[in-house]
Amino acid sequence: METKSQMRDEKYAADISSIREAQVRISPFIHKTPVLSSETLNSIAGRKLHFKCECFQKGPFFVSSPLLLISGAFKFRGACNAIFSLNDDQAAKGVVTHSSIHCNTKNAPKCKVENVIRYNGQVIWSEPTMRSREDMATKVLQETGAVFVHPYNDGRIISGQGTISLELLEQAPQIDTIIVPISGLVNNLRRRFDIGGGIGCQVHQPLQFEFLAAEPKGAMNQAAHLKEPKYHMKYHKRVNTRPIVRDFVDDIITVEDKDIIEAMRLCYEILKVAVEPSGAIGLAAVLSDDFRNNLAWKDCNNIGIILSGGNVDLGVLWDSFLK
Amino acid sequence: METKSQMRDEKYAADISSIREAQVRISPFIHKTPVLSSETLNSIAGRKLHFKCECFQKGPFFVSSPLLLISGAFKFRGACNAIFSLNDDQAAKGVVTHSSIHCNTKNAPKCKVENVIRYNGQVIWSEPTMRSREDMATKVLQETGAVFVHPYNDGRIISGQGTISLELLEQAPQIDTIIVPISGLVNNLRRRFDIGGGIGCQVHQPLQFEFLAAEPKGAMNQAAHLKEPKYHMKYHKRVNTRPIVRDFVDDIITVEDKDIIEAMRLCYEILKVAVEPSGAIGLAAVLSDDFRNNLAWKDCNNIGIILSGGNVDLGVLWDSFLK
Repeated sequence: METKSQMRDEKYAADISSIREAQVRISPFIHKTPVLSSETLNSIAGRKLHFKCECFQKGPFFVSSPLLLISGAFKFRGACNAIFSLNDDQAAKGVVTHSSIHCNTKNAPKCKVENVIRYNGQVIWSEPTMRSREDMATKVLQETGAVFVHPYNDGRIISGQGTISLELLEQAPQIDTIIVPISGLVNNLRRRFDIGGGIGCQVHQPLQFEFLAAEPKGAMNQAAHLKEPKYHMKYHKRVNTRPIVRDFVDDIITVEDKDIIEAMRLCYEILKVAVEPSGAIGLAAVLSDDFRNNLAWKDCNNIGIILSGGNVDLGVLWDSFLK
Repeated sequence: METKSQMRDEKYAADISSIREAQVRISPFIHKTPVLSSETLNSIAGRKLHFKCECFQKGPFFVSSPLLLISGAFKFRGACNAIFSLNDDQAAKGVVTHSSIHCNTKNAPKCKVENVIRYNGQVIWSEPTMRSREDMATKVLQETGAVFVHPYNDGRIISGQGTISLELLEQAPQIDTIIVPISGLVNNLRRRFDIGGGIGCQVHQPLQFEFLAAEPKGAMNQAAHLKEPKYHMKYHKRVNTRPIVRDFVDDIITVEDKDIIEAMRLCYEILKVAVEPSGAIGLAAVLSDDFRNNLAWKDCNNIGIILSGGNVDLGVLWDSFLK
């Protein structure tokens, strides 16, 4: 079996250079999102928590009508980096991507679609499977000559997302641990955990902090896959984030649905930040018994938590107000 | 009738000096809250909006057990200024205030009470009337020798709250207009508009920007009272914010309940900020026809909106997730 250092000799889809380049490229266009903290939450967690509020990032990213670009809040940096890496000819023809909007399930995030339309983006519906989405994107590409940017499996996207933690470390240099939501593929029955593309991975060399990922138990389990060599053989050449996760993520913490909802509630009621469930996974992980009781993380005193996304449908809430 | 300049000769409970002093006093203890913007909301409003997210301010303020309790995100700066203006003997005996927690109405903000208890503050219930709250506070004061700080009718509170706009103008000096939620007394049937104390008034001399206030139509109407001399005669010596509002607020915009809920929805879904209805009133005002169609405000191009409070009970939302 390869050692960790041997594995790191391979070329990754993103590295510290490409992330720094992305930061220079996108900084005029993005929001430098604030880092919030709460003594109440510090007290509940028994650590100092630094919430990087990437959910305040600009939303859908639209280039040239009528071609679509869908992006949840978490993906703006990546999308921005991908777009501004194009030459003018490419950019003029537009960009196509696909996104996991689960329109046919209960509590689907209608507001995500509304946001796309608000930005004059074009939404083309497909069946809610990855295969169907990819087929539809191919068809649109053939018809229009637009450029396809995969929503997460693209070095430019990964590098753009990587600027989140680069920025976070500039804002809160005392951080010794970063925890990010993970999982591009989600099988959760209720499909609320729409993390989508990009893990916001900061590929530091040398690593100066612990880098943890958190995913819902309901998701197709990356934690299990990491431990399964066959899975690596099959997928790691196809999925660009996979070797990065494998080699740089120190551990993956899985959390129960109910704990994610509880973390989301703390985000709303204490931090006053409206995240979607996937955005609250990092907090859920930090508050989980698995994390608290693991001696490996006892010295994680200053934890950066990336809060991403905000595409949760709050219709039930507004309805209750107007009753 | 007095002219505006004559009226301004009187002494106010807070002025630019007391606000600057408050800023120095409280700055080590408060969060410098971020200013967020959204191109989507700018586009909806037709102006540039700068959201001062005071809802991220520290929450309940707790000094010495078992007394005191001040709560509500909006009031931290004021409370902080009041407490740190006390001498050590006074502070040792604790502080009492009262707050409008409407526990007996539908959708009462339970989380507000929970937050108070979380900080080891003591909640003493009274009947939900101002008179009953004041009587209860008096009783506690007599029993304990604690210091009473009125939740909004106190120069130290007003000065502390005034630091919000002072800070906002430092962060976004291009602002030409500031709009704040107003109304200490709320009669709204559903009692959701718990603005509570302090108007965050920035008493500038000379005024270099338009200073507007917004209140729900359901509230005891300050806009109407301002135009009613009898009301001034009766109240302006009792209510310290009254002469400040009368002399410095350029106009009061009243907004419908349904428009406040819509503004709140935009805050959650686009800004991703979890405000309570009262906190979204400023945005509702800016989007109202009354504001849009008033030629007096046509040159208000850079509007600072203070988003305050977050004590909205989202129980219905969590219930929907866990169904």
